[in-house]
Amino acid sequence: MEQTNIQINAERLWDSLMEMATIGATDKGGVCRLTMTDLDQQGRELLLRWTDELGCAHQCDAVGNLFIRRPGRNKERPPVMTGSHLDSQPTGGRFDGVYGVLAGLEVLRTLNDHNVETEAPLELVVWNNEEGSRFSPPMMGSGVYTGIFELDWAYQIEDEAGTKVKQELDRLGWIGSRPFGQAVDCYFEAHIEQGPVLENEGKTIGVVSGGQGQRWFELNVYGQEAHAGPTPMPLRKDALLCASEMIQMINRLGLDNGPDACATCGLIKVLPGSRNVIPGHVWVTVDTRHPDDDVLIRMESLLRESLGKIADKHRCTFDLQNFWISPATPFDQDCIALVREGAEKSGYPYREMISGAGHDAVYMARKYPVAMIFVPCEGGISHNEIENATSEDIAAGCQVLFHAVRSRAG
Amino acid sequence: MEQTNIQINAERLWDSLMEMATIGATDKGGVCRLTMTDLDQQGRELLLRWTDELGCAHQCDAVGNLFIRRPGRNKERPPVMTGSHLDSQPTGGRFDGVYGVLAGLEVLRTLNDHNVETEAPLELVVWNNEEGSRFSPPMMGSGVYTGIFELDWAYQIEDEAGTKVKQELDRLGWIGSRPFGQAVDCYFEAHIEQGPVLENEGKTIGVVSGGQGQRWFELNVYGQEAHAGPTPMPLRKDALLCASEMIQMINRLGLDNGPDACATCGLIKVLPGSRNVIPGHVWVTVDTRHPDDDVLIRMESLLRESLGKIADKHRCTFDLQNFWISPATPFDQDCIALVREGAEKSGYPYREMISGAGHDAVYMARKYPVAMIFVPCEGGISHNEIENATSEDIAAGCQVLFHAVRSRAG
Repeated sequence: MEQTNIQINAERLWDSLMEMATIGATDKGGVCRLTMTDLDQQGRELLLRWTDELGCAHQCDAVGNLFIRRPGRNKERPPVMTGSHLDSQPTGGRFDGVYGVLAGLEVLRTLNDHNVETEAPLELVVWNNEEGSRFSPPMMGSGVYTGIFELDWAYQIEDEAGTKVKQELDRLGWIGSRPFGQAVDCYFEAHIEQGPVLENEGKTIGVVSGGQGQRWFELNVYGQEAHAGPTPMPLRKDALLCASEMIQMINRLGLDNGPDACATCGLIKVLPGSRNVIPGHVWVTVDTRHPDDDVLIRMESLLRESLGKIADKHRCTFDLQNFWISPATPFDQDCIALVREGAEKSGYPYREMISGAGHDAVYMARKYPVAMIFVPCEGGISHNEIENATSEDIAAGCQVLFHAVRSRAG
Repeated sequence: MEQTNIQINAERLWDSLMEMATIGATDKGGVCRLTMTDLDQQGRELLLRWTDELGCAHQCDAVGNLFIRRPGRNKERPPVMTGSHLDSQPTGGRFDGVYGVLAGLEVLRTLNDHNVETEAPLELVVWNNEEGSRFSPPMMGSGVYTGIFELDWAYQIEDEAGTKVKQELDRLGWIGSRPFGQAVDCYFEAHIEQGPVLENEGKTIGVVSGGQGQRWFELNVYGQEAHAGPTPMPLRKDALLCASEMIQMINRLGLDNGPDACATCGLIKVLPGSRNVIPGHVWVTVDTRHPDDDVLIRMESLLRESLGKIADKHRCTFDLQNFWISPATPFDQDCIALVREGAEKSGYPYREMISGAGHDAVYMARKYPVAMIFVPCEGGISHNEIENATSEDIAAGCQVLFHAVRSRAG
């Protein structure tokens, strides 16, 4: 018999989140816990201290993903999986990623509290390098796990200091023997929304039915570097001036394909980089997103066409390279139904939505049944030290996760 | 009796320039000889080997300026000085700075060839850190020499690696006992134009009558960093989008105050700097120039007003700090006359002009009589590895310098 009235412990979940947030805490109240650093290691050690207390075993795979297992009655059944990531952006918040991991921990703790044994084993997973800010691309761990990236390719990726992923994994002892490609029953991931929709509409739960398509680019703009003093304005080929008009156009491209499109330039570098030299070369990153891959492809061709016009106007040249493509990814109807059911059962107001952000769940969904649970975050702000969420919403999402995991695991 | 028909040795001058250009030579035919590096030291060693052969003594001052002295008949007379700098931009050319130093060397060599003794002593000076690309601000050596910068202030300036000017001066043994503020009869500096005017008009010599005023700024733009995926376009406060519109406006400010105004953004940095984070903070450098200080001040107030409007439109904020101001600086009429006379005597087509670039001569002109001699450079391109000039023009500028120095020193 299912104990239908089991409640997760909201206070314990919140306290664990706050304790984890002390690791890499920033002055502005956020977190800087970059992937595969000593701080990221400390985060895992804290988590493992908690899961050891629950009697769970753990194991890494070859790309540093960490799997923490709570046995089920039936050893033959593939595990019901939940989790997220513990790494953060350079100026990240206390909830992005870590919430999904600690909500999963709270599910395990609650099951232990009530001596519930599930039919299927449960696995709490910490995906390595979800953020991609130290080692690009993001979602590296789940990408390798699901066969989207080659392990050897991931190993040789370098951070800005020239350190390779493989070196850091060796240093931290994160290379384990868990094989890739094992059967997984399904995967649930709880996450803050990282956008303003739930808050604006007064909903507690986002029942996430899929992930947005993403196309990321690297844009190089070439002009001619020259001395900033004696080079008359009309004769210049200023790559930064050209790039700045391109950045404006890229923003309009997002607006014009709204309300669901996004287009963002997050990084820019100028060469040669001197106060009194007209820039000869500019490098810019472009991130475009839309729930419909066809729209995204049309945006790319508009982008290329507009870049050409702007470059010509400034007598510059450009190239636009596809850096990373993630197609729009629908989630699993049965898993989505369990999330919806969990929200309804607890009486939380909910809405179905598409995830604008990339998540490990999106890669998992290419191979396994997946659903996600969103909770509101204050002002929709994420990837920011002031990222915030209420204890009530945090608990609500975890309660829905508990229902979904419990129902699925039997 | 003056030997009026003495000619400098054009081939020797060119060969010395090409030999110096091997120190820090880049693949693209330019030079990277950043100030106070081992390469900069090697450049000085080569020069001193040449001036030692002429029997000249040398001495540094406390900021690493190098003075090489050819005695005159009258020890009491202050020296007639000429020179420039040996440091380069990160992707610099073979002529910027080094030409003025080696043209001065060729003047000394020519005087030695013909056993000419001048009444006043001559000094060939190598100003330290003219470029300002490793340690900002530029023209640091001549600025300290002329009392515009404090020595202690210059000592503590750091490069991007955190190395201080003082550390490098100590390491290289460039701190000498030559006092600042000694009497100087006058200072001549030969330089490539670094702009396209002489070439366009078919002139060989620029008789430079003064330096442009410069006002440099640092612009900070503050928006709100947020996740690039789930943050709808209309709700963003994108600091890079805002800055890109400001960069466009700054360019228009230069164009609108043409033909003599320049406005350039040479460096930009984005924080937090991640492909999938909307930039929350952008830092940009702004370099404005005009021969008339009143126009330059009016440009600054237009700049501030326009920045405010653009920031408001993007719901961002900004601050604009004055980073460096160099007023418009007229040169000395007598010295200018000697340069003009030298060009006329040799039959070189010439025009009077204002220097668009900053030069050590501009700082020297605040305290001593100064003039400059420009020669054309190919396509007006400088601060670039493809910087080029003809051997004929290089020789012509040196011949005019010889006349001016010789006439002045008596």
